[in-house]
Amino acid sequence: MKRLDVSTNKREEFIDITHLISSACAEYGWSSGVLTVFVPHTTCGITINENADPHVKEDMNSYLSKLIPQSQYFKHAEGNSDSHIKASLVGSSISLIIEDENPKLGTWQAVYFAEFDGPRRRKVWLKFHMD
Amino acid sequence: MKRLDVSTNKREEFIDITHLISSACAEYGWSSGVLTVFVPHTTCGITINENADPHVKEDMNSYLSKLIPQSQYFKHAEGNSDSHIKASLVGSSISLIIEDENPKLGTWQAVYFAEFDGPRRRKVWLKFHMD
Amino acid sequence: MKRLDVSTNKREEFIDITHLISSACAEYGWSSGVLTVFVPHTTCGITINENADPHVKEDMNSYLSKLIPQSQYFKHAEGNSDSHIKASLVGSSISLIIEDENPKLGTWQAVYFAEFDGPRRRKVWLKFHMD
Repeated sequence: MKRLDVSTNKREEFIDITHLISSACAEYGWSSGVLTVFVPHTTCGITINENADPHVKEDMNSYLSKLIPQSQYFKHAEGNSDSHIKASLVGSSISLIIEDENPKLGTWQAVYFAEFDGPRRRKVWLKFHMD
Repeated sequence: MKRLDVSTNKREEFIDITHLISSACAEYGWSSGVLTVFVPHTTCGITINENADPHVKEDMNSYLSKLIPQSQYFKHAEGNSDSHIKASLVGSSISLIIEDENPKLGTWQAVYFAEFDGPRRRKVWLKFHMD
Repeated sequence: MKRLDVSTNKREEFIDITHLISSACAEYGWSSGVLTVFVPHTTCGITINENADPHVKEDMNSYLSKLIPQSQYFKHAEGNSDSHIKASLVGSSISLIIEDENPKLGTWQAVYFAEFDGPRRRKVWLKFHMD
């Protein structure tokens, strides 16, 4: 298992980590197989979405926060129940197909670290299964 | 890695692709293992849900569109931010257990391609890991 | 493939099954690899979230039910379209990294069976892929 470090800058933010995954594939010689990408935290997630227009991630973030606001009516006293709910909806793990030491993605796809309770220093765990 | 082709007919639609996955397992001799099913697009998803009453997928579609409407207030100019948000909530990949050249599913489960910005010609990628 | 049994007690409930997964790893000698955890039902899900304050799962449950209520306006006559929608948003499968016969989780993470239409007797399927 390998680790990536991701520093986030805002409470809510989508950070493109595709290049970090590509670098790990090259560094560790992961040529062809399946890569499990796992977030070991409970107030952030991992997802795939558009890599071109930055408005897409802004719209995603603002609409998710409208749908699941940081309310004072939650019981959990840390004030981040909204972050926990978003984490379970977006999800903590994805599976990527690896070919030629790169994640095999669609033309418009990027892998995003989804911060819902930053800014923080976060980890992403990578586990590769060779063909 | 193998590819499936899926043609969608509406803007929002759940299409049962279980038989396509079963056919691929038979065609490629995938007898026992884990299959990663991956959607290389950013305005659709892949999910598992009921295979019996077609009202379930209608309810899912209409309620998701009520929850995340195609609004003119999004910044992304293509008018499909709702589709991108749904894609990240439903997810781009699932893992299926394969036994006897078939996806091992519960009695009422089917694998659905979830179109959120059709009609389009779409791809689904399949990566098999043998036991 | 191995099976876990989970009995749920309420219509909506998050049940920590981390210890059941750890026990299975020990019992079957799953030392190092990736474990696919799959729910063969269409009105429940599987997710990872906080293991400490029980208020987190209460907030998640009550907010999800506020967002997706059990309405009489759905077409599906069984009265559980809300459960089906939640199931597709939370998801039916997760991938866990296994090390030293244990799921490798973050400090605050637990694996939750997410019941959305209980009480019922449920199954969870486990498929291990050794390194």
